[in-house]
Amino acid sequence: MRITLQDKDLPDSWYNIYPDLEFTVPPPLGAHGFSLKYDDLEPLASDSIIRQELEQEEQEIVIPKPLRDLYSEYRPTPLFRAERLEKELDSPARIFYKYEGSSPSGSYEFNTAIAQAYYASQYKDSGITCLVTASGNGEWGVSTAIACNFFNLQCKIYMVKSAYEDKVFGRYLMELLGAEVIPSPSTITNAGRKILARDPDCSGSLGIALGEAYEEAFSRADTKFAWGTVMNHVLLHQTLIGLESRAQLKRVNADPDICIATVGGGSGFGGLIFPFYKKRKRDTRFIAVETAAAPSLSKGRYTWDYTDTEKMGPMLKMYTLGHSFVPPGIRAGGMRYHGISPVISTLFREQVIEAKICTQRQAFDAAITFSRTEGYVPSPESAYAIKAVIDEAMICKQENKRKNILFLLSTNSNLDITAFRDFLAGSIEDQHAQDSQINKAMEDLPQISQDKV
Amino acid sequence: MRITLQDKDLPDSWYNIYPDLEFTVPPPLGAHGFSLKYDDLEPLASDSIIRQELEQEEQEIVIPKPLRDLYSEYRPTPLFRAERLEKELDSPARIFYKYEGSSPSGSYEFNTAIAQAYYASQYKDSGITCLVTASGNGEWGVSTAIACNFFNLQCKIYMVKSAYEDKVFGRYLMELLGAEVIPSPSTITNAGRKILARDPDCSGSLGIALGEAYEEAFSRADTKFAWGTVMNHVLLHQTLIGLESRAQLKRVNADPDICIATVGGGSGFGGLIFPFYKKRKRDTRFIAVETAAAPSLSKGRYTWDYTDTEKMGPMLKMYTLGHSFVPPGIRAGGMRYHGISPVISTLFREQVIEAKICTQRQAFDAAITFSRTEGYVPSPESAYAIKAVIDEAMICKQENKRKNILFLLSTNSNLDITAFRDFLAGSIEDQHAQDSQINKAMEDLPQISQDKV
Repeated sequence: MRITLQDKDLPDSWYNIYPDLEFTVPPPLGAHGFSLKYDDLEPLASDSIIRQELEQEEQEIVIPKPLRDLYSEYRPTPLFRAERLEKELDSPARIFYKYEGSSPSGSYEFNTAIAQAYYASQYKDSGITCLVTASGNGEWGVSTAIACNFFNLQCKIYMVKSAYEDKVFGRYLMELLGAEVIPSPSTITNAGRKILARDPDCSGSLGIALGEAYEEAFSRADTKFAWGTVMNHVLLHQTLIGLESRAQLKRVNADPDICIATVGGGSGFGGLIFPFYKKRKRDTRFIAVETAAAPSLSKGRYTWDYTDTEKMGPMLKMYTLGHSFVPPGIRAGGMRYHGISPVISTLFREQVIEAKICTQRQAFDAAITFSRTEGYVPSPESAYAIKAVIDEAMICKQENKRKNILFLLSTNSNLDITAFRDFLAGSIEDQHAQDSQINKAMEDLPQISQDKV
Repeated sequence: MRITLQDKDLPDSWYNIYPDLEFTVPPPLGAHGFSLKYDDLEPLASDSIIRQELEQEEQEIVIPKPLRDLYSEYRPTPLFRAERLEKELDSPARIFYKYEGSSPSGSYEFNTAIAQAYYASQYKDSGITCLVTASGNGEWGVSTAIACNFFNLQCKIYMVKSAYEDKVFGRYLMELLGAEVIPSPSTITNAGRKILARDPDCSGSLGIALGEAYEEAFSRADTKFAWGTVMNHVLLHQTLIGLESRAQLKRVNADPDICIATVGGGSGFGGLIFPFYKKRKRDTRFIAVETAAAPSLSKGRYTWDYTDTEKMGPMLKMYTLGHSFVPPGIRAGGMRYHGISPVISTLFREQVIEAKICTQRQAFDAAITFSRTEGYVPSPESAYAIKAVIDEAMICKQENKRKNILFLLSTNSNLDITAFRDFLAGSIEDQHAQDSQINKAMEDLPQISQDKV
């Protein structure tokens, strides 16, 4: 069953969770080790984005009219009740999923890409002509490429070299869309050259690609950086997901007992759950599903850390495996990130949310059950959430409880069908982050003196 | 701009064009050479499908409630006004596109797959447990696989061997969905064995795969055949496309001056234009876009011919390049078919519709312009329609006329992103059907004595 909203029900504003938080979120720090100020971000982002990043008072941030018109080309997105999956599981649970796979890029990430491109385009008079970013598999890069086209901005993407060479569909799609795609580490930036000098065969990482893209934005007046996750303004833009879901569930008189999403950096998860935060029931559960290959919440340390390997960007107080931690290779490249958004980290520390670890084989197995019943094939990333959903639905069955489970199907499978082929052929192994590797990465954490904050 | 409809605006009925036709469409013939009767189709299709295939009186065929509920999971689909493309072309034309890429399979073909699976499932008591079909690239096979899952039917797909080996994404997706995918020609059927005996290295064709699937349906009481195009009931199911488009254009007070769609067998094109047929203005143009590799309307003969290479299925009076014609290889595999639906063929003969030939390089070039302005990446097949749209919009510009152009974006790019990579790399050549090959295939046409019909 598809639960739709009318065009007029598209939210007018994003929801800023800060004024409603019962906890303090430690501020980001600049390279100087002090709380990050407007000026620190100025080389990286446009004025409006910086204001949104730092905004802690306003609860509703109005979406500008031209941007809302673009959102209305693909939003409100559908909310589905997964009745065929419920029947297959023979569970009394009611399972709902918010489907973001119908965006132009096939991913929820378009929600923030289009906002960042819009704001950048507002400063063309000051010479901004280009957005630069970093991408793993390519979902984020494809979203950014489409968004840049809508506003006649150039788009430059540092793509993790191993993905550039192996997971080529994202790259093909970005190039078809006219973006410049550069395998990272590259010889274009100082960061890239330094790494290649150390290790000419380096296959790259998201942390390295981020460092290169930061450097490019810092060094060029015509270029701003586009963030795919972790930062406050990204989570702000993604709250459209939860705002619409709330209105859609209201249409069928369902209050969610359990909200579930995959976490990489936390933007999809935050976007889904924030609008349910303030009026949550005492027993509402928010479950962030992590990959066993990079379980930042479950196995990381809560501390200040860099967002990129090269220590170019801001430091955030978050659960982190350490910016130098390199997770084992898994198919859901977007989940191979060492940290988690500061707000999500705070909510986890305060026990508002739970974390759950799944392996990739568990995730693929769940995704196949879902695809064969519901018809939509999820990305490997979204598959993790489905594993947790099925587990919860089976507990409902054991306990004979009719709970409402809401989850985010964030991205469709377009860019990684071969992952499923490999899984069915038995050639995908589970990958676990090694404690020894995590402990080693912890040695590289920055030493922050609390009195500077 | 997205023009939506509400859930309640989903059509209650399909539109059957027969009662409104001002021309006679010659009936299909059975292998016996006489007009096809109910009994001839009985081994291939379920009762309701045969009735729909032969129905010529009823204008509105009511959609059964459970099927309409499934349609409502993804329909009404959006109609977009391509304002960014209009601006890019600097044309006064208003360009609208009906987007079917958001169906569960990413293709319009799901509209008929789900109907055929529904009707087959109504005869489970008589032992029907399986649908069999043939697929080229895989879009149709993926649609059928999802539809079968919705009704707990088995799904068996004879896939053209060259596509099975080269265009593997469709195959991976069908297998992930639990379908049995068999490279054709196979050793399972008599037809396949006969061909392999002649040519062990035969890479297959849609005509051969159809022959194998027909044979399987004929020989098994538990199995029915699912048609992807050409047949009346398939075009009937696809009229949802045009019915919704008509209602959506009405919302913005736009009457189409030109309707454009790609033709392979004609089901997408028919589905789009039929609902506009009866009340068309004198100067409304319907343009069917063919590939230069298989221009059935433009270069074929209007005569009875078999639908498959092995002469297992019915004969249709249609524009055909000959059932033994093998088109040169192109990336839009679904357009490599030798014939065109009898109704479309009649409308072409009566000059109600026009045909236009495009090459694949022209199509890819147009698709890239479209993708970079509108954000949605079309399948290679849909790209042909876009080439014709851009041509018409440029004529509007030269003549300074504000015409309304409606076209069908039938399928998204999921299964063939590599085609665009190859095009951008310069490794895709135009392919033209050779007159000598067409003439040779004409020698294999069946000889039908008119008095039998």
